[in-house]
Amino acid sequence: RPESIYNQLLKMVLHLQWLEKKHFIQLSDQRQQLEEEKHTQSICEQEDYLDHLICKMVNVLQSGATSGLECQVYLPYLDSRDGVRSGQKAKVLQLSDFEPAFFSHNLSNHGADICFVTLKVLDYNAYQGDKFHEDKNTLGFINLGTSEKLCIDLMIERLCQSDMNHIEDALQQNPDWKGQSEEVAQFLTYYCRAPARLDPENVVVLNGCCFVFSVLAMVLCDPREGFLVPSPFYGGFAFSSGLYAKVELIPVHLESEITEANTCPFQLTMDKLEQTLLEAKSKGERIRGLMLTNPQNPLGDIYSQDSLIEYEFAKKYNLHAIIDEIYLLSVFDESITFHSVLSRASLPDPLRTQAIRGTGKDFLSGFHFDALYTHNREVASAVGSFGYLHSISGINQHKLSQLLHDREWINKVYLLTNHSWLWNAHRYITNKLKELKILFLYCGADLCIWINLKKDLDPCTFEERLLHHCFLDNKLILSCGKTYICEETGCFCLIFAEIKLAMLQFCQVLQDQKQSWIEKQLENTIKE
Amino acid sequence: RPESIYNQLLKMVLHLQWLEKKHFIQLSDQRQQLEEEKHTQSICEQEDYLDHLICKMVNVLQSGATSGLECQVYLPYLDSRDGVRSGQKAKVLQLSDFEPAFFSHNLSNHGADICFVTLKVLDYNAYQGDKFHEDKNTLGFINLGTSEKLCIDLMIERLCQSDMNHIEDALQQNPDWKGQSEEVAQFLTYYCRAPARLDPENVVVLNGCCFVFSVLAMVLCDPREGFLVPSPFYGGFAFSSGLYAKVELIPVHLESEITEANTCPFQLTMDKLEQTLLEAKSKGERIRGLMLTNPQNPLGDIYSQDSLIEYEFAKKYNLHAIIDEIYLLSVFDESITFHSVLSRASLPDPLRTQAIRGTGKDFLSGFHFDALYTHNREVASAVGSFGYLHSISGINQHKLSQLLHDREWINKVYLLTNHSWLWNAHRYITNKLKELKILFLYCGADLCIWINLKKDLDPCTFEERLLHHCFLDNKLILSCGKTYICEETGCFCLIFAEIKLAMLQFCQVLQDQKQSWIEKQLENTIKE
Repeated sequence: RPESIYNQLLKMVLHLQWLEKKHFIQLSDQRQQLEEEKHTQSICEQEDYLDHLICKMVNVLQSGATSGLECQVYLPYLDSRDGVRSGQKAKVLQLSDFEPAFFSHNLSNHGADICFVTLKVLDYNAYQGDKFHEDKNTLGFINLGTSEKLCIDLMIERLCQSDMNHIEDALQQNPDWKGQSEEVAQFLTYYCRAPARLDPENVVVLNGCCFVFSVLAMVLCDPREGFLVPSPFYGGFAFSSGLYAKVELIPVHLESEITEANTCPFQLTMDKLEQTLLEAKSKGERIRGLMLTNPQNPLGDIYSQDSLIEYEFAKKYNLHAIIDEIYLLSVFDESITFHSVLSRASLPDPLRTQAIRGTGKDFLSGFHFDALYTHNREVASAVGSFGYLHSISGINQHKLSQLLHDREWINKVYLLTNHSWLWNAHRYITNKLKELKILFLYCGADLCIWINLKKDLDPCTFEERLLHHCFLDNKLILSCGKTYICEETGCFCLIFAEIKLAMLQFCQVLQDQKQSWIEKQLENTIKE
Repeated sequence: RPESIYNQLLKMVLHLQWLEKKHFIQLSDQRQQLEEEKHTQSICEQEDYLDHLICKMVNVLQSGATSGLECQVYLPYLDSRDGVRSGQKAKVLQLSDFEPAFFSHNLSNHGADICFVTLKVLDYNAYQGDKFHEDKNTLGFINLGTSEKLCIDLMIERLCQSDMNHIEDALQQNPDWKGQSEEVAQFLTYYCRAPARLDPENVVVLNGCCFVFSVLAMVLCDPREGFLVPSPFYGGFAFSSGLYAKVELIPVHLESEITEANTCPFQLTMDKLEQTLLEAKSKGERIRGLMLTNPQNPLGDIYSQDSLIEYEFAKKYNLHAIIDEIYLLSVFDESITFHSVLSRASLPDPLRTQAIRGTGKDFLSGFHFDALYTHNREVASAVGSFGYLHSISGINQHKLSQLLHDREWINKVYLLTNHSWLWNAHRYITNKLKELKILFLYCGADLCIWINLKKDLDPCTFEERLLHHCFLDNKLILSCGKTYICEETGCFCLIFAEIKLAMLQFCQVLQDQKQSWIEKQLENTIKE
């Protein structure tokens, strides 16, 4: 495949970014020797501006599309909304970062921001229109990037049974805004192994797991406040908290390397949490909560099997602890015991502990039926009031209720099959990865595997986004570490899907890449 | 029924409000004679504060519930966020009006605001738990306040047919964010009588008509900008535009009385539009659009059968024209020809004309399937990006597509029955109203009738909210004019539902009310 102009441009800018960084490091070394304070400050400002401008260019190019929006390059200091970033802020993609980049005659500033940030979604739209199909479209996109295809035949069979099509009067009208809370409470009591019956009054159902998080951000934070989130984490959360609530996610960076402080890869410790919190506070950030996904997404690992450090940390600093357990029923390794937050007989600060339970990953992503469980009636009431605009249609409420109620089927048919499917996929992928000598994180839950392709990155830039685009050019969709706000470079996430075919394509791309670098280096050597 | 303490309190405050207003009118007369400029200003400020404080008390009492939230009365001038209102702003309920009224230890300021504004929803929740049923709950609430029960049996019958239960792979997964745009475009082309085939690329489907409006407010306006809306209008729009976008709705007040300028009741004229726009601009408001519901909600009338003044006005002042045609298929009077905005061969400013088409009123409110049609690709793209959090579940996409596709059934079965049902309901209610000598607005569309009960208001306060609470105390839900931001007092909206029973109860309440006033006045006469 010929390389697109866009890809060539991206490579150039990335190289520029790399050069710039190298140059700055040198400058910074010199400065330390010279200790000329005043001069230093003006250099720092210039550097920050350059850095910011380049970041913007990379983002524009990465989005791959600017149709309908005019790009405006602002001069430093001329725009009060932009100004020069001090470089001190934690780098999470925020809507406000793009404020001055785009201008539209038809949309408001806010509208143009939203449009730009979501341009990245175009990859996914391209996939929707050109999906791989074994008979109909053998050259289509293979998706290792979103967890969908799981046991779908089984689910469809169940959804076609006669009990699903009962349509009650009440369900066709404006349904109860708080959703099918009775059924959800029973489901959670059973599958989260709650010590006592969970109260339906504490349940709120809304259409979408990310949206539940978005609403929590709105009712717990005021604009410009923030949540701590161990990274890597699912990037959709940053979009969700930024869109309406303007709440920032501050990453608590976890490392893969095992050290004295880090007894296992990506370990979350009280030290790391406190350090990030104090750093954020020293920069004037107001932190209102800690957000966790357990089992972790994308690592597939499990938090605090024995300890409650996250909850103790949250209580100590008066933070809300928000736990998203969307992979609750996807723990396929039976040797692992997963403890739901709702299984704890006593929590350090129950009124500030909010559990999100989505159905999109364990069941089907097309349902849009996701619940909040909170012991805090004020939070339940505030979140519940969003049902006015965002409740679930009665048809879906009924189908999901029937499904959640049918434990016989869930336990004996669905989970058995699903877990064995997950085990097999996991085994197949990890065997392939071992063959390819690719580092991966062992996990016993979740629908994906976290891998490290650092050794396969372009040796000139060490830029994972280039490799990511190579995969895309070969119609293989998979997410790179940057999407998960991962600090380490070269990480990718393989989500279980059409795995056999996908792994073949995956190997092929890596091999082609290596071949092309070798050829390029040979060429360079000959020139020299 | 004994009167609740809350109702007694409300009466007292309303009386206080009435007294205060009377007093202020007297003062203002004196001021005009004295012309003491400086003194006047300080009096005005005091009055505005008093007025604002009393409004707040009324709102608190009206909400009927303050559980979990602490009410704080702020002193004047001490809170910078509140301050004294100048009294110049158009009075539409805004979230920000309540900022200082409530305080919560668990929620953010924003969260507490949302919680407070939606406390009013409690009426509806009480209804959900205690609905009238002819066998099971004969003492339950009768709903003349939300348009639901329409031809529901017919719809359920159709939804239970076999074509509805086909479940495709793709529908169970993350559905296309732009929704079933092909089917919707065909449906709109046919039922809106478009002069040419409408383009699916211009369609965006989201879950909820109010939410589509909410998103339009977000992408067309920046916070604190506004839309003009002819009033009375559906109050949910003010909530929808305020919640995320912080966009204000500025009412263009229409009058029922026929005058030289007003050749028919509630006439919208270029003069009124321009006057409101100029007034708003002079107060520093930035207006970005004009919002219309056509056929009108709640008046049931139809805008511009022959003229295009709304569109010409919008073009003249560079405003977006947003047209909500949720009652498109509910024009039951065959002598009326309704022109959809999409039927116009040429519009003054097509890029700034946005059509919203919901299915909730013509079909079923439980669907949550509502579309935007726009010729402006930038707007389509910005609105479409909200599909990430708010797309329709695949199950519903399929059902609605099947339904919208089945024109044979819609035309020959559904609409025929529905229109004849609407005619009969309309005839029944208007006959009753004539018997009771109650003024009403004749309409040939919509699911409701706009009535004037001014002569049935308490002669001491002329306060429609008291009568509204009497209806509620007698388990009859109907909406008063204030809910529709109507300037005239004593207006109510009767929505077609269990009409026969409801009208009996309605007559009874009015009669009881009259009796109690007569008794009270007799008592007062005896005391004197």
